[in-house]
Amino acid sequence: MTVRIGVIGTGAIGRDHARRINQVLGGAEIVALSDVNRASAEAVKKDIAPEAMVFETGEALIASPDVDAVLVTSWGATHEQYVLAAIAAGKPCFCEKPLATTAEGARRIVEAEVTHGKRLVQVGFMRRYDAGYIALKKVVGTSIGAPIMVHAAHRNPSVPEQYVTPMAIHDTMIHEIDVLRWLLDDDYVSARVIFPRSAARSHAKLRDPQIVILETAKGMVIDVEIFVNCHYGYDIRCEVVGEDGAASLPEPMAVQMRLDARLQNRILTDWKDRFIESYDVELQDFIHAAARGTAAGPNSWDGYVAAITSDACVAAQEKEGEIVPINLPARPALYN
Amino acid sequence: MTVRIGVIGTGAIGRDHARRINQVLGGAEIVALSDVNRASAEAVKKDIAPEAMVFETGEALIASPDVDAVLVTSWGATHEQYVLAAIAAGKPCFCEKPLATTAEGARRIVEAEVTHGKRLVQVGFMRRYDAGYIALKKVVGTSIGAPIMVHAAHRNPSVPEQYVTPMAIHDTMIHEIDVLRWLLDDDYVSARVIFPRSAARSHAKLRDPQIVILETAKGMVIDVEIFVNCHYGYDIRCEVVGEDGAASLPEPMAVQMRLDARLQNRILTDWKDRFIESYDVELQDFIHAAARGTAAGPNSWDGYVAAITSDACVAAQEKEGEIVPINLPARPALYN
Amino acid sequence: MTVRIGVIGTGAIGRDHARRINQVLGGAEIVALSDVNRASAEAVKKDIAPEAMVFETGEALIASPDVDAVLVTSWGATHEQYVLAAIAAGKPCFCEKPLATTAEGARRIVEAEVTHGKRLVQVGFMRRYDAGYIALKKVVGTSIGAPIMVHAAHRNPSVPEQYVTPMAIHDTMIHEIDVLRWLLDDDYVSARVIFPRSAARSHAKLRDPQIVILETAKGMVIDVEIFVNCHYGYDIRCEVVGEDGAASLPEPMAVQMRLDARLQNRILTDWKDRFIESYDVELQDFIHAAARGTAAGPNSWDGYVAAITSDACVAAQEKEGEIVPINLPARPALYN
Amino acid sequence: MTVRIGVIGTGAIGRDHARRINQVLGGAEIVALSDVNRASAEAVKKDIAPEAMVFETGEALIASPDVDAVLVTSWGATHEQYVLAAIAAGKPCFCEKPLATTAEGARRIVEAEVTHGKRLVQVGFMRRYDAGYIALKKVVGTSIGAPIMVHAAHRNPSVPEQYVTPMAIHDTMIHEIDVLRWLLDDDYVSARVIFPRSAARSHAKLRDPQIVILETAKGMVIDVEIFVNCHYGYDIRCEVVGEDGAASLPEPMAVQMRLDARLQNRILTDWKDRFIESYDVELQDFIHAAARGTAAGPNSWDGYVAAITSDACVAAQEKEGEIVPINLPARPALYN
Repeated sequence: MTVRIGVIGTGAIGRDHARRINQVLGGAEIVALSDVNRASAEAVKKDIAPEAMVFETGEALIASPDVDAVLVTSWGATHEQYVLAAIAAGKPCFCEKPLATTAEGARRIVEAEVTHGKRLVQVGFMRRYDAGYIALKKVVGTSIGAPIMVHAAHRNPSVPEQYVTPMAIHDTMIHEIDVLRWLLDDDYVSARVIFPRSAARSHAKLRDPQIVILETAKGMVIDVEIFVNCHYGYDIRCEVVGEDGAASLPEPMAVQMRLDARLQNRILTDWKDRFIESYDVELQDFIHAAARGTAAGPNSWDGYVAAITSDACVAAQEKEGEIVPINLPARPALYN
Repeated sequence: MTVRIGVIGTGAIGRDHARRINQVLGGAEIVALSDVNRASAEAVKKDIAPEAMVFETGEALIASPDVDAVLVTSWGATHEQYVLAAIAAGKPCFCEKPLATTAEGARRIVEAEVTHGKRLVQVGFMRRYDAGYIALKKVVGTSIGAPIMVHAAHRNPSVPEQYVTPMAIHDTMIHEIDVLRWLLDDDYVSARVIFPRSAARSHAKLRDPQIVILETAKGMVIDVEIFVNCHYGYDIRCEVVGEDGAASLPEPMAVQMRLDARLQNRILTDWKDRFIESYDVELQDFIHAAARGTAAGPNSWDGYVAAITSDACVAAQEKEGEIVPINLPARPALYN
Repeated sequence: MTVRIGVIGTGAIGRDHARRINQVLGGAEIVALSDVNRASAEAVKKDIAPEAMVFETGEALIASPDVDAVLVTSWGATHEQYVLAAIAAGKPCFCEKPLATTAEGARRIVEAEVTHGKRLVQVGFMRRYDAGYIALKKVVGTSIGAPIMVHAAHRNPSVPEQYVTPMAIHDTMIHEIDVLRWLLDDDYVSARVIFPRSAARSHAKLRDPQIVILETAKGMVIDVEIFVNCHYGYDIRCEVVGEDGAASLPEPMAVQMRLDARLQNRILTDWKDRFIESYDVELQDFIHAAARGTAAGPNSWDGYVAAITSDACVAAQEKEGEIVPINLPARPALYN
Repeated sequence: MTVRIGVIGTGAIGRDHARRINQVLGGAEIVALSDVNRASAEAVKKDIAPEAMVFETGEALIASPDVDAVLVTSWGATHEQYVLAAIAAGKPCFCEKPLATTAEGARRIVEAEVTHGKRLVQVGFMRRYDAGYIALKKVVGTSIGAPIMVHAAHRNPSVPEQYVTPMAIHDTMIHEIDVLRWLLDDDYVSARVIFPRSAARSHAKLRDPQIVILETAKGMVIDVEIFVNCHYGYDIRCEVVGEDGAASLPEPMAVQMRLDARLQNRILTDWKDRFIESYDVELQDFIHAAARGTAAGPNSWDGYVAAITSDACVAAQEKEGEIVPINLPARPALYN
């Protein structure tokens, strides 16, 4: 069976996912497109999905009987409405980050899905599909004893002027928030943020770098360095320390060179290259589950928890150095 | 357009390629199956390709108007006849190693394809699709100056009793023969083989390890250690030394652990895991080219050259330590 | 000129330093020994320094006209009195950690040395003489831009029952306290300590691991994981993150092995092996300076600052998670 | 006891060894100097050994009753005569490479020492004292099973015009010849040399790089890449492959940097830095043995075998690709 997919939002990421589905992955095809800018949808139709129908609205696309499943890759502020509509229509829905722009919005999605009674939503936390994190999770669960601490870093070469301090949480740290919870199979109970002096390459509205410290229900302590003007490259690091040993996220594959008096490997500089293969894998997982009328991978609850945790981290930025508790509601049985 | 593929030979590799095409890759579907053991083809139909038709013979499958392209994954001795039939039918054909069991057979395929006037054959040298070799080739072509030497090793934990000395060339070294030629964009002019004492884990009919030394038309010297009873793991290594520096094939991605007084990464032990992703990529390349009615990647000429070189290496085993010239005919223009 | 050295305290470390001076290093000889347990001093005389005189008291040894310089390697509580006596006698003095058991005691030594008007004291912070830290300091000062953060870890396989929580500062973290200050050329302004759940291998009177966070006058933030029951090995790590890049303390030299499906290096398990060469270098530095009637390397002020910082860290352990300010008096000109 | 040492030949290496003995190492002092250029000896006296006596000839220095042991660091062609004189005088003698400029000369030294009946000569093969090779030898003897192959490389950034092809053996490969024999506890039985095309940075009288293949009495095969115009750095590599696994010479300690989109370590460029610490250790070993009236470490027989092997390798260069047997006389009992 070929899953017939509609894409709502045909900007860079929507276009790229359409390409994946039509040209790289098996089991699905793009049959419908919609964008607030109709020309954008038409362009994707022309370049990638000539047989797709272009819809005036996301809601119309979702309602179409020719559409089996939906990709929500529109502007973040519109995610909630489309995901709710997809749930109402009983159609599997892949939603890019964020699930909603507020924790409250994410909660509404959780409630709608719980009411529906079956998983329909996958949130676009692609790191869970990265081969490195998957390998690390396997080692953490089998080889190093129960984990106690995590030391992580999220480094990015530079950011534009409009990137301000809270975005270090909402746009950057959000990935660690989700993937570390999954990696450790645990929940956060508090956050605090410590700011060193800002880097010279930062700007007036951005305190950069920062160190976010999370504590978990099982008593783990996680420190995450967020440094978005680190200059030298895009570099994601993660070491888990357990009762018996420590394990580190693999470095990306690289050719080792002996050149110019240096033993050297390339470090990536563009975040788009770092997890590029995991986008394929996450969408394949979506297609497989959608073919069965459901969804797999990161769920609405994960999106909701990420939203609550992000809000706490932003509060912790404002209360520099102070501990901010993270209180989660009870997890619905659907997500166990 | 969906490429309709027929598979001739539904043993382990044929079944696995069928799975790739129907479940992992986009752009193609399995529509026909054939195997000398019909039950095997029926089993693949049942498990993977329920809509495929089972043919009595490979020739009938090739002749079917429902088949756009052919995978030859049958017993090696039958490859030549099916590839020749596919060329005669003007259908793109992916053929697993070896292209033919003799250099003479490979030559006949080259001649048939040249007569046909268009590329139709891709040989299953999957290493050319490995991300590590691709990254190495890029560096070799841009960063380390013109290459002068290659130091390589092909290590395998153990082999069964029926693996005898010439198989170290035909089944093992064959991969280095193809991939190094491609990596260096060069041709071999001679081979010699040096045998150390055999390892204790070898057996009476196998001299293992061995060092194969190849010289190229451009004056490069390549040494390849073949050690198929190395015990510790499946390990493929390759360092290219150029005018300005050296570059090494990346190690497979692995979690670094600090455990038991050891800083340690896992080494693979099963060859099937080492290049597993490259099988996906090579078949995707085949599908893309087949959709255009042609073939890409390693061609018949490459298969022919590999056969000639293998024969020279086996002769060099017999003449232990002596130099054996490798004489290639002129390369037809089709393969430039 | 050969520097004539007297050793006060001939336990394990005193004996080992005597061996260094008489058997490994040039420029000095052991001429005098003293220990509260005279038999211990006699044993060192017999085994290592047959021509040395054994003195009843450290004070008598210091007073002897045959002694040019003094090594204080006695029980920690006695360090202050011997160092003060050496200063009073105007003799160069190498004092093992701690310089004094209280910050107050260290301050008295600083005052005495300042009054004397010339450096006479070297404190046994041997990490400053480790080739790895020296190489790291060079890179930090030249290649990675001004430093902003440090991520460090001090891991030890196991500790005995009598090792209690404050010892994680006084006996373990003390090394990072000194060496990071030197590495960064900065002073601490605050400390806080965060405790994850304790490791199963810890015991009732020890919270282990812990994360100590130090802030510096220049606005750097340093996090140090102290984990003294880490089980897997003795492992010292340090990454400095600067404006332009990051640099890590070299791993100790180790043979890389491919064995048992693992790419592996040995990790040390005994702290005595980790900085063993730096003891030679620090004593050689002492000898060279003593030959000129003065002292080099870590000075009394460094010992005093380490004592103040340690006290703050222990207070920070007690005030779990709260920030504890570190106030240093003005640095006397002698130490600029 | 302080060993009184005389130095014959006060050029760069002689001066440096004099500095080691007087300023770094314990247990010895320079009491005598001699050089064909007396001003050179006077300069070393002035700078390093003010209490040393300057002798007109090496023979007079050796004969002096004030001299306990001798360092021969003069021009290579004079080594034999001074070593023979030291043996005749019954004085321990450290001789820099080569022991003699011909195998015949080395044989005469062996015979003289055997006649004397006690070891008196240490040859300056400093790699045996390198911590990396020592660690590798330990692993080879305990962890990887009986060795079967060695892959080695000796790379140097550049050489002057006067460095001609045979010097790649006599000045460069000579180190591998000695250290691999020691590492493997084996003797060579044949040599052959294979030349790739020469590097563009080579010159008319130098074929560079080259691959030297040695076979041993135990059936091991060793390949050594010699590349003296490799441009990128001074780089010594050695991998031993055994029955159970493989082990590699440690890379020199280096700070790992993340900088300029590169994960990078420095590679040395000057050979003098690579084994600098091993010079200290070899001379300390000489001093310790000399204090007992004998010599330790690499002996005259080792020097003789190195000379015979070098001669065979040069012959193998001339007979490009052909096998040249290496026939050693019986080893005198003194060297077992």
